[in-house]
Amino acid sequence: MHGLIGKMRAQPGQRAALAAILLEGTAAMPGCLSYIVAEDAADADVLWITEVWDGTASHEASLALPAVREAIAKGRPLIAGFESQVRTRPLGGQGLPAA
Amino acid sequence: MHGLIGKMRAQPGQRAALAAILLEGTAAMPGCLSYIVAEDAADADVLWITEVWDGTASHEASLALPAVREAIAKGRPLIAGFESQVRTRPLGGQGLPAA
Repeated sequence: MHGLIGKMRAQPGQRAALAAILLEGTAAMPGCLSYIVAEDAADADVLWITEVWDGTASHEASLALPAVREAIAKGRPLIAGFESQVRTRPLGGQGLPAA
Repeated sequence: MHGLIGKMRAQPGQRAALAAILLEGTAAMPGCLSYIVAEDAADADVLWITEVWDGTASHEASLALPAVREAIAKGRPLIAGFESQVRTRPLGGQGLPAA
């Protein structure tokens, strides 16, 4: 499995709008096992996106999906920056399909 | 929802053993919507634990579960340190029960 943990900073006051765009655009992505959008509890402009994919190919293919491309186009003006992105290899756990 | 994103450093060479203990001890936690254990792709001793709970009460209650207490006791000697822990409010996404 292939994973990403990303910290994204929204333009001031735009976090909720950005989150809604991300959730809408990522609802149907083949090979995506988990994609969770969360607000930082301490920083009012930060979102955390945690992703698990069945492999890197599915993640790369997702970037060409029309809904994802639309979300990127709509969301980009609301993003101030990407503050960190970590690549992981998820091993398992709750909330994933059985291995 | 209540979320946590934690970065844990294992004692050198102990990451796989630590991950196995965590996965075994956290398989049945009421109110836990997602609990994923992942290896850092770039640092051989780092694990990332991403958690989503239905609320803080479930998370706190989990720490008293016998399987979780056993995992903490077995895992603690294998942990070199906790390098970061972020509290989040998950909004939704794939891999969570429908809201």
